[in-house]
Amino acid sequence: MDKIEIGRINQTVKKWLQADYDLINKMMQSKLDISTKTGPRDLVTNVDKASERFLIDKIRTFDPDSKILGEEGQGDRLTSMKGSVWIIDPLDGTMNFVKQRDHYAIMLALYQDGQGILGYIYDVPKNVLYSGGPAIGVFANEQKLQNPENVNLRSGLFGASGPLVIENKFGMQSIIRNSAGMRIYGSAGIEFIHVLLGKTVGYISYLKPWDVAAGNILASTLGLVCTKVDGTPLDMLSSNLVLVTTEKAQQDIRKIVKENV
Amino acid sequence: MDKIEIGRINQTVKKWLQADYDLINKMMQSKLDISTKTGPRDLVTNVDKASERFLIDKIRTFDPDSKILGEEGQGDRLTSMKGSVWIIDPLDGTMNFVKQRDHYAIMLALYQDGQGILGYIYDVPKNVLYSGGPAIGVFANEQKLQNPENVNLRSGLFGASGPLVIENKFGMQSIIRNSAGMRIYGSAGIEFIHVLLGKTVGYISYLKPWDVAAGNILASTLGLVCTKVDGTPLDMLSSNLVLVTTEKAQQDIRKIVKENV
Repeated sequence: MDKIEIGRINQTVKKWLQADYDLINKMMQSKLDISTKTGPRDLVTNVDKASERFLIDKIRTFDPDSKILGEEGQGDRLTSMKGSVWIIDPLDGTMNFVKQRDHYAIMLALYQDGQGILGYIYDVPKNVLYSGGPAIGVFANEQKLQNPENVNLRSGLFGASGPLVIENKFGMQSIIRNSAGMRIYGSAGIEFIHVLLGKTVGYISYLKPWDVAAGNILASTLGLVCTKVDGTPLDMLSSNLVLVTTEKAQQDIRKIVKENV
Repeated sequence: MDKIEIGRINQTVKKWLQADYDLINKMMQSKLDISTKTGPRDLVTNVDKASERFLIDKIRTFDPDSKILGEEGQGDRLTSMKGSVWIIDPLDGTMNFVKQRDHYAIMLALYQDGQGILGYIYDVPKNVLYSGGPAIGVFANEQKLQNPENVNLRSGLFGASGPLVIENKFGMQSIIRNSAGMRIYGSAGIEFIHVLLGKTVGYISYLKPWDVAAGNILASTLGLVCTKVDGTPLDMLSSNLVLVTTEKAQQDIRKIVKENV
């Protein structure tokens, strides 16, 4: 896919996301229909489902030969990353959305034969769309982002996942003690945005493909490292214990993880 | 102090805080001068000091007989809450300010003979001032806030302090497991705002008087409970393990704390 083609797709996708933003904001004016999935902390609402339906419809029309993986299961069953694959998190941070109406995002990513082409994280409450990919760079709305500074763990705040901290897996508590402090925002999309902007030095969590697909593309484009916690590449067909971080902090963290496995 | 007098003071203080907001934003355009206080996670900058100096100067002119307690020590040594006492946190969340330029606040409170009269938490990055007290209610900028819903612990996200979670003191991890999830924003002011708005059901942390003075007034005015973790009243002359929460969640949390002391 050449740069002109990617630019054309990008302009189209940004229009979808703007319309999806409007849809979500409109639906928030009515009472939410909330149900649980795997457990009491795994929520889905009518808005998650409508946002996914909306994006799938757009993609099917625009790119009918592609495969689609969506969190709410209205897409395809994905068995390979061959060809054009769209990965949708129609509303990331659903618990925040339900309890706070704050700190949530829409995420969308396009992969071609397993390579990340375009990623999107839309911070809906702040109305800022983070978009881009290796061919075009990363933007916050229309403003091009610079790579965040390559600082070490000790110099930065670290985005953690609550359960990992409590269970103290993989040396989590030691990682935090060796950072400038722990932050928990409760949405992978919002956590990724903090890392992209250098507001945190990294983020670790168990993530499903739709939680990491977009952030992975944006982070890699900005010189950050996004891998499994052992440094091996992500597998977009399964869950991963994801670590996204600066290069320097990755070295610090992997040392701690090795001592605690 | 009658309502008219309180209203007059309120109008004056809001003007100070607007000017302090402008001062902070102006100073952020230059390089920060950062130093540590008690340890590497206890930072102070030239902006903290300038903000405190600015507010102290305003208070001294306006209310020369009052006492002032300020985080950066440019006020008085406070030995009693008798008379008119102003408590200043000139920049709460200094680590966030330094590392993120986000998630920090100015806090200011006025007590009269130990009674909270007026409290202010200024979310500087979002440019929203939370202000008020028992005589006038609580406002987000010019919009009057309603009391948050009196929900139980299980129904809400819970604002924790990182060190308390890691050390698992007072049943912290059990409190979190019994909530809808843990969040950590890294600034007492920002955490208090989340509780005021019902975005979290509560917040627990070791806090100095300037971390809690304003939030205590705003929270109490909105029907929330702000006490030491054992339910006894705060002491504004020393550090407290503070719990601010809905009435129902306080009962849930105190039960867990009792089982874990």
